[in-house]
Amino acid sequence: MDEILYDFGTGRSDPSTFPVAALQAAATKVIAEQIEPLTNYPGGLGHEGLRRAMAERESSREGVPVDPDHIILTNGSMQAVTLTAEALQVDKGDTVIVEEFSYPGTLSAYRSLGYEMHGIGLDEGGMRMDQLEDRLQSLDAKGKRPKFIYAISTYQNPTGFVMPKARRLEMIDLAARYDIPIVEDNCYADVHYEGEVEPAIFALDDNPQHLYLGSLSKILAPGLRLGYVLARPPMLDKVLARRHDAGSNVLAAAIAAEFYKDGISEHAAVSNPVLKGKRDLLLDELQDHMSELCVWSKPVGGLFIWVRLPDDVNLKRLMSEAAARGVKYLPGISFHYEFAKAPYLRLAFGHLNHNQISLGVPALTAAIQACRTSNEPVAFDSLFD
Amino acid sequence: MDEILYDFGTGRSDPSTFPVAALQAAATKVIAEQIEPLTNYPGGLGHEGLRRAMAERESSREGVPVDPDHIILTNGSMQAVTLTAEALQVDKGDTVIVEEFSYPGTLSAYRSLGYEMHGIGLDEGGMRMDQLEDRLQSLDAKGKRPKFIYAISTYQNPTGFVMPKARRLEMIDLAARYDIPIVEDNCYADVHYEGEVEPAIFALDDNPQHLYLGSLSKILAPGLRLGYVLARPPMLDKVLARRHDAGSNVLAAAIAAEFYKDGISEHAAVSNPVLKGKRDLLLDELQDHMSELCVWSKPVGGLFIWVRLPDDVNLKRLMSEAAARGVKYLPGISFHYEFAKAPYLRLAFGHLNHNQISLGVPALTAAIQACRTSNEPVAFDSLFD
Repeated sequence: MDEILYDFGTGRSDPSTFPVAALQAAATKVIAEQIEPLTNYPGGLGHEGLRRAMAERESSREGVPVDPDHIILTNGSMQAVTLTAEALQVDKGDTVIVEEFSYPGTLSAYRSLGYEMHGIGLDEGGMRMDQLEDRLQSLDAKGKRPKFIYAISTYQNPTGFVMPKARRLEMIDLAARYDIPIVEDNCYADVHYEGEVEPAIFALDDNPQHLYLGSLSKILAPGLRLGYVLARPPMLDKVLARRHDAGSNVLAAAIAAEFYKDGISEHAAVSNPVLKGKRDLLLDELQDHMSELCVWSKPVGGLFIWVRLPDDVNLKRLMSEAAARGVKYLPGISFHYEFAKAPYLRLAFGHLNHNQISLGVPALTAAIQACRTSNEPVAFDSLFD
Repeated sequence: MDEILYDFGTGRSDPSTFPVAALQAAATKVIAEQIEPLTNYPGGLGHEGLRRAMAERESSREGVPVDPDHIILTNGSMQAVTLTAEALQVDKGDTVIVEEFSYPGTLSAYRSLGYEMHGIGLDEGGMRMDQLEDRLQSLDAKGKRPKFIYAISTYQNPTGFVMPKARRLEMIDLAARYDIPIVEDNCYADVHYEGEVEPAIFALDDNPQHLYLGSLSKILAPGLRLGYVLARPPMLDKVLARRHDAGSNVLAAAIAAEFYKDGISEHAAVSNPVLKGKRDLLLDELQDHMSELCVWSKPVGGLFIWVRLPDDVNLKRLMSEAAARGVKYLPGISFHYEFAKAPYLRLAFGHLNHNQISLGVPALTAAIQACRTSNEPVAFDSLFD
């Protein structure tokens, strides 16, 4: 097996900014002071301190009040992905709407549960509302009502795109007209580098049928497995009724709550500039090495860059040619809702160091060149046709 | 609302033996030394160190080898309860076998998922094999094959009973004849006070269709939400395929693994005698106050005593009469697979102090006496008729 030197594969946080001393202090404090919650079952909502911290996080970013008792802590946002679908009473064979390219964890869960997924095309503003409307109309004509629309509207995985506010309002309007809940996955929230932050859908529409997923995996660390659902009554009780695990990890939640007792901005002010530096370097290297060959997204947040490959690249061979050069990435097909072949790949930059990024891009470039089946100049200048 | 002075309700560990200093030291160490797993996704199996520790735990108790790669860490054993049912492809309306009185968390999950439960009667040796055989026969005659048998065979919740080895072998034989997997919930394992330990079913039968559930909630603390499934191929992959949460909490698992690096017996040697002291005191108080009124189990491990009430007690009134005296307990009906009224209650003693036990029993006795509807002497002398 080839040694992986340049692992652009997994969407991980940056190990170099993992706050060792602060987490040690938080752990030491809560293990001594929170014996009562640690030796008890947390209940469906979970550790109150972390719920308050996450309500404050959402409220201060979005400028709307968030009730800590509407936050349900989960085992990462992935538990929230299936829990919300179950709460919306999706059964095998039921229809759900997803982005054409989306997070493989979600797609894999929905696939495993037998949901009939309909993928809606993306552009630089995320899910396309013209395509969504067409699809809802054609499904409606067949008497099918999708159980929900799943969307990663900010720093979308894999593209990195952010849906503008106007389009969010269009989506809210479409969802209302067809009476379909939106499951908004905002797990990259607060990994923000520059410019305005677009408002979350839950902050634009207080319709309680919509559900919102959050996470600490990207702003702190995925090994803590801390995510949450924001659900308003009566959806709140429907989500709680489908959780059968007696509640989320109190120890990790208590440590994270103590760490974030002064808000999340303190650690974000340390970790985001480090991630931004890696994004900048990766964009520079792509420009230096691939400008004649590929186009790519320029995300203002999140952990990913989405790269469009020349149409004449042998995609299967590219995996092994890249691996032979020490490069790992996730191919476009992994993100497609029905595993269609697509001339894309995703580069995750969060946990590589600068040297790995600088050496990895030319290695990947060489692999792409080696897999082209023609000498034609590359014709496209957009991520999408 | 009445103040709860004597909370015999929840099956919790003992807060006084919660190992604060050792967990603080473990947390300090792993947060510094395990940055790589903490900043990554754990995968379906989970933290390797805790899997090794739990394999060693099971192997040393049962005297059979246990492969750490057959252990799947879960969010408490409650996540394992639904995960194993899903892996066994149980769908709404499918038949499963449970003990007539069993853990409310499991019964509630199965009920919520729409399983058709069949409860098998208990005696001092746990689930009755004559009744199980009759039920399997009658279901078979109707063309119904139960998807699995769920049993808490050691320190059964709520009764505290242990199934003897001979009966375990009978159950294994019946399961083989009818080709039904056994889901063995051993979450009270190692909370052992005296006498021989009966072997686990997985140690008596290496048929890979059986599944085994373990937990750290009772020997350490439920707030850590650490449980596991022991599954052998090909069942192992079926369980993994149904998990969609990207793996269990690495932080809590790493801390527990460090805490248990020399095995689990060191902490059990501290915590079990404390729990045994409470069990002894509760048995003494019951003998002193209720010997003319009730009969009860004398468990050799676990956290519960099961009390049979006089048949003439008004069970509904008893809840409020007890509450008025500061006593909380769980009534028999909570443990019945179809919520049948039953003249029983369960006393959990793990987290009360000695004073609370000594004052709580006479208060409960007075409540029982106040709720009798006759002056007849109590006729039964067994927990079961």
